[in-house]
Amino acid sequence: MAGAERALPKARRLPRAVRERQMVDAAVRCFARNGYQAASMDEIAESAGVSKPLVYLYLNSKEELFTAVIRREAQALLGVVAEAVVDRSAPPDERLWAGLMAFFTFAAEHPDSWAVLSRQARTQGEPFAGEAARMRDEITAFVSGLIGEAALEAPGGAGITGRDVDALAQALVGSAESLASWANETPGVTAKEAAATLMNFAWSGLGNLMKSERWSPR
Amino acid sequence: MAGAERALPKARRLPRAVRERQMVDAAVRCFARNGYQAASMDEIAESAGVSKPLVYLYLNSKEELFTAVIRREAQALLGVVAEAVVDRSAPPDERLWAGLMAFFTFAAEHPDSWAVLSRQARTQGEPFAGEAARMRDEITAFVSGLIGEAALEAPGGAGITGRDVDALAQALVGSAESLASWANETPGVTAKEAAATLMNFAWSGLGNLMKSERWSPR
Repeated sequence: MAGAERALPKARRLPRAVRERQMVDAAVRCFARNGYQAASMDEIAESAGVSKPLVYLYLNSKEELFTAVIRREAQALLGVVAEAVVDRSAPPDERLWAGLMAFFTFAAEHPDSWAVLSRQARTQGEPFAGEAARMRDEITAFVSGLIGEAALEAPGGAGITGRDVDALAQALVGSAESLASWANETPGVTAKEAAATLMNFAWSGLGNLMKSERWSPR
Repeated sequence: MAGAERALPKARRLPRAVRERQMVDAAVRCFARNGYQAASMDEIAESAGVSKPLVYLYLNSKEELFTAVIRREAQALLGVVAEAVVDRSAPPDERLWAGLMAFFTFAAEHPDSWAVLSRQARTQGEPFAGEAARMRDEITAFVSGLIGEAALEAPGGAGITGRDVDALAQALVGSAESLASWANETPGVTAKEAAATLMNFAWSGLGNLMKSERWSPR
């Protein structure tokens, strides 16, 4: 195969990492738009501008390619959210706002990635559902950490137990997932609008919203 | 019907509606515990205490049985929530509390039903995912209605637009789904605890929780 590659015209030669990235990029599009079952390796190779044997050589099988897609996109999503909330000296509401903005911006700018993570990966059985569940558990643990830190800073811990923290993290992650999919399907809803809605819901609560008390960035 | 029953051998003959209910009950258990693919009509018939041909006679196919399961359980869930919030004279927070209690109680008392609706139905492709999506849309429309009514009663509508209402309903439904599955998987979490967590999150918001300001029933 290396010999075969050497025989190709020069402009076609790219480092393996670049080729792989093109293939995974193409796979994200195809899986998101056609679904895992209907997406074909032919189509993915064509969309990536490479031969089908090269896709098999690098990624082995459609299953492994799908797993690579889920892992890469999950890491990308976790990465932008983690980076957004990295400043521990910021007040909890500002960190939450930054994390939500990063999350909704990722979902809005990469709708195919979000479709794969939130829908395709969960509906194709194992091992994909397990990969998606691990990613969700990581995000939830991360949100638990943020809420736990906020509770520690609150007077007397605000009476919030460890289990309360886990439950609140589940509630927040569930609402974020639901809103991100709704935002991507609803024309004209921006990432900032979705993030602001969830910030108001999660931070101020419906009770305060009904009193026109909204959260706003400092 | 009473006449027919008198003429039959005593213990074995039951009205068709009763038999069908037994079959669908058994199917809920089998689909929830083994998954749609692995669940067999043999096992469902045995669990229902009837012959396999009778299951096919009444429900036609595994696909139709699964559809019947999703519809029946979705209607049951919608029914208990609708009944809980029927009193329009109650204040919005009390109605939300009653709806959440009904929802989490249903999920806790019927974990197999909740597993089918929240997981199995969504992960088996069409037409099942569509059935599950319709049920979710109905619940979300219903929650939109409640939030919209609360906004109408708020001074000046609290500046909440129709799209805000839809987005808040999506956030609330997403958090309820997430928490119900977490509660069912976490030993010792009661329906009331899950409902109270979500009520505090949704009504008071994290900001008030951090100030130890909790919602409590009047």
